[in-house]
Amino acid sequence: MYTLYYSPGTASMVVHLALLEIGAPYELRLVDFDRDAQHSDEYLRLNPRGIVPTLVIDGRPRNESAALLTMLAERHPEAKLIPPSGTPEREAWLQWVVYLSNTLMSAYRFWFYPADLGMAEHTPDVRAALQKKIEAVWHLLDAQLAKDGPYLLGATFSGADLLLTMLMRWSRNMPRPATEWPALKQLADLVRARPSWKKLYELEGLSGW
Amino acid sequence: MYTLYYSPGTASMVVHLALLEIGAPYELRLVDFDRDAQHSDEYLRLNPRGIVPTLVIDGRPRNESAALLTMLAERHPEAKLIPPSGTPEREAWLQWVVYLSNTLMSAYRFWFYPADLGMAEHTPDVRAALQKKIEAVWHLLDAQLAKDGPYLLGATFSGADLLLTMLMRWSRNMPRPATEWPALKQLADLVRARPSWKKLYELEGLSGW
Repeated sequence: MYTLYYSPGTASMVVHLALLEIGAPYELRLVDFDRDAQHSDEYLRLNPRGIVPTLVIDGRPRNESAALLTMLAERHPEAKLIPPSGTPEREAWLQWVVYLSNTLMSAYRFWFYPADLGMAEHTPDVRAALQKKIEAVWHLLDAQLAKDGPYLLGATFSGADLLLTMLMRWSRNMPRPATEWPALKQLADLVRARPSWKKLYELEGLSGW
Repeated sequence: MYTLYYSPGTASMVVHLALLEIGAPYELRLVDFDRDAQHSDEYLRLNPRGIVPTLVIDGRPRNESAALLTMLAERHPEAKLIPPSGTPEREAWLQWVVYLSNTLMSAYRFWFYPADLGMAEHTPDVRAALQKKIEAVWHLLDAQLAKDGPYLLGATFSGADLLLTMLMRWSRNMPRPATEWPALKQLADLVRARPSWKKLYELEGLSGW
């Protein structure tokens, strides 16, 4: 049994999408940022860093969205969110998921939370450097998908595409959103057309892109 | 067959340690940073971002050290660097490896490369914020290990400890090195006593801590 502690549109999104793709039963618990619920004693017992998501798996609270995606994908091989162990496709999947997590998610963290860099708001130089770092990821991935797409693993959809599309969405109010890169836009269109994406928008009350 | 492109003491270290733990045959290729070899045409064909490590697996160049650790661990289950799929220990392993990769490795990147933040050198505020972010990881991990150590998975050594010890080593010239936290120091001592660690120092020509 799964319980997902989430906040709409945040990093919990990829875990929620994976649950919907799998079709496993789960409970949803909103962590209400407006009430600072991520810092409540109850939540900190599950997640000492006070961040979302937390996924409780058979009573065990786990975190880190890229790790949760991997855990769910491994536990439900029939959903084909991750290729089988020992295949070249598995290697590619692991590489992309780690790359997205440690390059892009970490840069976003500093982009959205200047306080993490000791600043009330970014200086223009820092802002430009973070934007450049994020856009370098779009350049690299767009080239990869143009050569060997439409998905991160080529012809076949996988959970890595859910992670990428969530991260593309976070750029929608940036000076140059990820969807301005054509092969990235094509991938996002494919993922956004999936029933899981539409269902997620309903359940989390999201709108637009 | 494996070929590891490395530079002594960098992120390639965890992949090299994993190869030594496994005992699989491999070739080592030095990427000579003094000659800017990471930006040579030859290397960029293997790794378009010009970073180490690259591990060539049966002809396929792969990167991202945390992903390479996972690939090697999965390909050689007998080395017990990663717990089997579907176990609670596997979940913990994935969570720690992703956490170390996207929280700690990414903060180090900005610590060691102020140019990534558009700065020739850090302002005191940025430096203090990055130091705080890195030390927060030591606090959290030290508490975890004190409660449930001596290894990240409890009583049993795994590949996650190789990654952690490499990352601890990178703090050795920081104002407060990771080894000042007692449970972290204990883990590092255990890992540094392993034959793989000693062999790595010989092969990479490392000294000290």
